[in-house]
Amino acid sequence: MSMKPEIPVSHPRRASLELREKLVHALDKNVAAKAGLIAHGRGEAFDYLLGEATSPPAVRAAEAAAALLLSAQKPVISVNGNVAALCPDEIVALSRAVSAPLEVNLFYHRSEREQAIAEELLAHGADRVLGVGDAASATVPGLESARTRVDPEGLYGADVVFLALEDGDRTEWLVKTGKKVIAVDLNPFSRTAQFAHVTIVDNLSRALPLIIARTKALANREASSLSKVVKSYDNKKVLGEAIRLMYRRLKRLARQGVFVEVPHTGDAQHN
Amino acid sequence: MSMKPEIPVSHPRRASLELREKLVHALDKNVAAKAGLIAHGRGEAFDYLLGEATSPPAVRAAEAAAALLLSAQKPVISVNGNVAALCPDEIVALSRAVSAPLEVNLFYHRSEREQAIAEELLAHGADRVLGVGDAASATVPGLESARTRVDPEGLYGADVVFLALEDGDRTEWLVKTGKKVIAVDLNPFSRTAQFAHVTIVDNLSRALPLIIARTKALANREASSLSKVVKSYDNKKVLGEAIRLMYRRLKRLARQGVFVEVPHTGDAQHN
Repeated sequence: MSMKPEIPVSHPRRASLELREKLVHALDKNVAAKAGLIAHGRGEAFDYLLGEATSPPAVRAAEAAAALLLSAQKPVISVNGNVAALCPDEIVALSRAVSAPLEVNLFYHRSEREQAIAEELLAHGADRVLGVGDAASATVPGLESARTRVDPEGLYGADVVFLALEDGDRTEWLVKTGKKVIAVDLNPFSRTAQFAHVTIVDNLSRALPLIIARTKALANREASSLSKVVKSYDNKKVLGEAIRLMYRRLKRLARQGVFVEVPHTGDAQHN
Repeated sequence: MSMKPEIPVSHPRRASLELREKLVHALDKNVAAKAGLIAHGRGEAFDYLLGEATSPPAVRAAEAAAALLLSAQKPVISVNGNVAALCPDEIVALSRAVSAPLEVNLFYHRSEREQAIAEELLAHGADRVLGVGDAASATVPGLESARTRVDPEGLYGADVVFLALEDGDRTEWLVKTGKKVIAVDLNPFSRTAQFAHVTIVDNLSRALPLIIARTKALANREASSLSKVVKSYDNKKVLGEAIRLMYRRLKRLARQGVFVEVPHTGDAQHN
């Protein structure tokens, strides 16, 4: 992928800056939305508080997510603009690893963006993408109509839904319709993070490879063993730990004084 | 201003959602840049940690900022896309209150955006805007050339510079050229926040009215009295307090458990 200006390989925050460039590029391609850029910025700040590294509670949540996906009857992976923009290869790989179809699922249904997202996923190796155009024909009571249109082959009948960077209303609605929801969200206070059954508080670009690795490790386990992993998981506890990690890091930074860590270098905060 | 979808007056996070809508609108008008949307999102997260309210250290920094602006020989207000998008009325009012000209100052100089920002400021009552097109003719050694072009009538000879939401390299460069820098930045760890002489860790939309009010309160003070306010101000201490406020709030939230506060409702996290 060509980026300009080029980010030096040695840049301490290269991974973060590359994700940002990907998202800006995706906005130009109509895959991401403007509000998605703002949401990404919020995530960056929480990621900074996590030290931009996968935490122990995120590892435990990823294990539960893998077990839940493997034990599902009808798992579905919900994909929005930011997910397709940031991690198209990884989300297609997760879809394969747990035999769960990909469904485009946007806050505002706009057929050009649905199409652009589907094309992005197909270009990255997806066999098929649900939820595009007339395929999203089923409506479910709860939210206003435009936002409840789902694919009868996908989200409509899913028992387990994997989603990331999702709007809180949609997550709440999915939970209320009885589905088990797995969410990746850097903000542990977001409604999505709080409503989901399994919340992985981590950057999606780090969380997806981890979840895929765990699904491979658990692939041959019996149903009873997977069920044990899921049942022993406590999401509120895990969320609480993620929040504690953030405040402990802030406390350390405050004690050390400022000028110790410099999170935003280069074009991090430009206008 | 018309917004769609309309944000209900009763919405608990109306102010935050309105700023977001302003920024998305400004991107369409070429006033804001895509990277500016991501930067705004980062600010939102830090603002949430502050409880979306002006803190005591921000009040003290605003007082020092007002005194420094009033005692300057040649103060200049640096304006980028996000500032013009979010607070055009307030930045013009500050310019009047302290008799400091407005200068457009972008990370990447692009004449269409300079022009769009200048027009936005003029439409909101500015008499004149520096730094647009050929006016930004002076170069200063330090940063790569494109980013050091400043107006000989403005930033070039300024002794005090007010800026907000600014890139760290530019702030560092302004400080190194001997200017006193006042910055508004919600991220107390940003290089801008750390390099500035006076850092107001607050949302720009709350900080500007506060600074304007303080300049009015201090307007008749003698130079020695203003100098006393400036000299007694300790920016490292104030930054440390802002960080401590954030971690104490996180600690409280972690103790209370989750499901207590729900920051992102409605279209807060959509795709």
